[in-house]
Amino acid sequence: MKSVIWEDTIVALATPPGIGAIGVIRLSGKKTFEIINELFPSKNFAEEASHSLHVGFIKHHGEILDEVVVSIYRSPRSYTGEDVVEISGHGSPFVLQQIINACIENGARLARPGEFTQRAFLNGKLDLTQAEAVADLIASNTSISQKAALHNIRGGFSQQLKELRERLIRFSALIELELDFSQEDVEFADRRQLQELIDEVDKVTTSLIDSFKLGNVVRNGISVAIIGKPNAGKSTLLNALLNEERAIVSDIPGTTRDTVEEVINIDGILFRLIDTAGIRQHSTDIIESAGMQRSIEKMKQADLVIYLFDVNEITTQELGEIKNNFSIQQSRYLLVGNKIDLVSEQSAREKFSEDPEILFISAIKQQHIDDLKERMVNTVLEGEVQTESTIVTNARHFHALRQLRTALGDVKKGINDKIPGDLVAIDIRRCLHYLGEITGEITNEDQLDYIFSKFCIGK
Amino acid sequence: MKSVIWEDTIVALATPPGIGAIGVIRLSGKKTFEIINELFPSKNFAEEASHSLHVGFIKHHGEILDEVVVSIYRSPRSYTGEDVVEISGHGSPFVLQQIINACIENGARLARPGEFTQRAFLNGKLDLTQAEAVADLIASNTSISQKAALHNIRGGFSQQLKELRERLIRFSALIELELDFSQEDVEFADRRQLQELIDEVDKVTTSLIDSFKLGNVVRNGISVAIIGKPNAGKSTLLNALLNEERAIVSDIPGTTRDTVEEVINIDGILFRLIDTAGIRQHSTDIIESAGMQRSIEKMKQADLVIYLFDVNEITTQELGEIKNNFSIQQSRYLLVGNKIDLVSEQSAREKFSEDPEILFISAIKQQHIDDLKERMVNTVLEGEVQTESTIVTNARHFHALRQLRTALGDVKKGINDKIPGDLVAIDIRRCLHYLGEITGEITNEDQLDYIFSKFCIGK
Repeated sequence: MKSVIWEDTIVALATPPGIGAIGVIRLSGKKTFEIINELFPSKNFAEEASHSLHVGFIKHHGEILDEVVVSIYRSPRSYTGEDVVEISGHGSPFVLQQIINACIENGARLARPGEFTQRAFLNGKLDLTQAEAVADLIASNTSISQKAALHNIRGGFSQQLKELRERLIRFSALIELELDFSQEDVEFADRRQLQELIDEVDKVTTSLIDSFKLGNVVRNGISVAIIGKPNAGKSTLLNALLNEERAIVSDIPGTTRDTVEEVINIDGILFRLIDTAGIRQHSTDIIESAGMQRSIEKMKQADLVIYLFDVNEITTQELGEIKNNFSIQQSRYLLVGNKIDLVSEQSAREKFSEDPEILFISAIKQQHIDDLKERMVNTVLEGEVQTESTIVTNARHFHALRQLRTALGDVKKGINDKIPGDLVAIDIRRCLHYLGEITGEITNEDQLDYIFSKFCIGK
Repeated sequence: MKSVIWEDTIVALATPPGIGAIGVIRLSGKKTFEIINELFPSKNFAEEASHSLHVGFIKHHGEILDEVVVSIYRSPRSYTGEDVVEISGHGSPFVLQQIINACIENGARLARPGEFTQRAFLNGKLDLTQAEAVADLIASNTSISQKAALHNIRGGFSQQLKELRERLIRFSALIELELDFSQEDVEFADRRQLQELIDEVDKVTTSLIDSFKLGNVVRNGISVAIIGKPNAGKSTLLNALLNEERAIVSDIPGTTRDTVEEVINIDGILFRLIDTAGIRQHSTDIIESAGMQRSIEKMKQADLVIYLFDVNEITTQELGEIKNNFSIQQSRYLLVGNKIDLVSEQSAREKFSEDPEILFISAIKQQHIDDLKERMVNTVLEGEVQTESTIVTNARHFHALRQLRTALGDVKKGINDKIPGDLVAIDIRRCLHYLGEITGEITNEDQLDYIFSKFCIGK
């Protein structure tokens, strides 16, 4: 496949800013080899093999700027599909900036954010969901978000949609053929088969829409409020949850440390513990009424509420009222009975008639903390995660899928009502439009610019 | 040349931490290909050509971690001299950390700071001054520091010393031969030629020692104090100096912005303007006596003092006293007469009898600011910079050179005093020792560890 080569050659630093052992500058476009030949005069890159590495000096205005390694990728065997070189220099921001300036003086221009990937998309190297997954992978900070992004980079998501789209296109063509014979009242498109296909697309669409709830969790994490009476042991539980995991979280550079939120990564899902400062401050001497108010506020903010109580203090009647309350509020919650170290787990269980909803722990003795974590994860995943299936993490895809479902409903209704083929064809085209919008077969420039502007520079 | 291959294989992130388009991980050592074969199972890297690039997936425990480009460099054609691979992955710190962890699980260990360069040095890929210049280049933030580092990376400095060292070694061997014939009172080593060589080494050594004053400026910049009476126009001058250059300085990531110092880069030299906050605060309503005290303090801290005065206010007598004062204090200073826009430049010149030491400017009209900058640079360079010659920027080299000069003096004195050859030989060996210490022919492990510990990780 021959690639489009853009007239303007773009250049950018591809590695993070700051001092490091090395820094990599990326060049792509028509003048790539011309520019690198000018800067690296000891070789003629137009004659070198693709996918080869070259050590030497970058020279500009007769001065050596750096000793570098140049990687070359010939069109179309490159990320963008154009001729690409990567210049790996010493990691001095000053030196790297000079090399970039030298590229610009020789005819390149600074790349916009995401512009390399945008060219890759426009050259058909990636479809739109794959391109978006590149940004997701760079932003990924848990194993689940990483996996979801890689699944999409490899085309898992779009492959599914493309197949359905092609089958819909075939039906659409048949129905449109009917229009040419409209006087004769023929039906080239088998309505039963069409109905089956629509049902199939609808099923896939619905399951993708449903996956967005999890996708959102994968992307943004899940907020957790720990509430309960003073002395229930909230701050002890907080420490128990954070203790082991803190090291793991701090291993990930970029994790925000300066908010009051604490974040724990359990099985690849980020749980953001909200108002942990509040827990630490008010753990002992909170005023009851203010405490209640605060608890209600926190419940409203949280995706998941952990209600912690002292098994030795609470009555079964009180607990019943609390459960009712949660049901009314429609909160996702976990009931956690603390301080089983003061009685026995068995007698605690008996007190609450072996209620399977309650998890019994001892925060201070770190008993059953792992069980609590498992329940937290299960509450989020609801057993529905198959890591091999597509998880929609992107709000743009989610909204297109919802519009697709509406259009599918219209097609179904049209078939049921036996409306004329030309009207059905319009609804099918709407379906095709939304499907194409997701994978990028149908785009407009503004939308593309918006999508790629959220990338980092150099990608 | 066959390289030493270390038993342990080292791994590190070579690019700066943080999120970027890409991040590069470097592996070097005996198990390099074994590890990359394990992680990138679609190729057998033991059979691939050196200096080639390979696109594919990193897999670990059956899971895909990332889509990457692997660069391979076969021993001895690599930075360290060992088998080296570089894995260029998506710039997510989380993903890169997982790849590093996978390398470690497969038998690598995390590299210490500078350990790749240390191996390069131990394999004779670089001598010690070249290795040190790598770190200097990464830290370089002006064109002069960059040029000095590149000169040394290319072996400019050590080449000079190595030649002298070899010639000294020959003399040393001849003198030591005399010892075997000590009964016969022969002189194999021509004392006149030896004296000439010692003079030559001494001359080179002295010029290198002298270059350290500039080298220090190149490395650390030069501190400048602007002093003068209130209303002389100090804050206006400060703004005039900063105005154009500020953009250039802020182009350099890593320039400290949170100190009260402001930094300007003039012709590749960093001028650090001290106490600029003081100038801004006290420019108008300073109390005279406190102002004087402050000026003296600032003069003591500064490498260069700019004395600014209002040409319309100061008397020639006052100015004479100020010049005397500077001479007594042995400060490097520039006399700058401001506000020539209020009179004429000509009448200002005449008032001070065409004193060539005074530079006349108008800070507010930005007149002759470039001339001031030129004078600032000349004051530092004192006309002595030939960019092609070696500038000693490294304190370790400076101290070794000073010890070398002492030892050379002892050799000279010994020859003059016609002391026995065996005693001269001891002094020559001291010279050889200090020369070898600079280039790394003579080292001890502690010293090496100390030198390389100041590198960044991944280099």
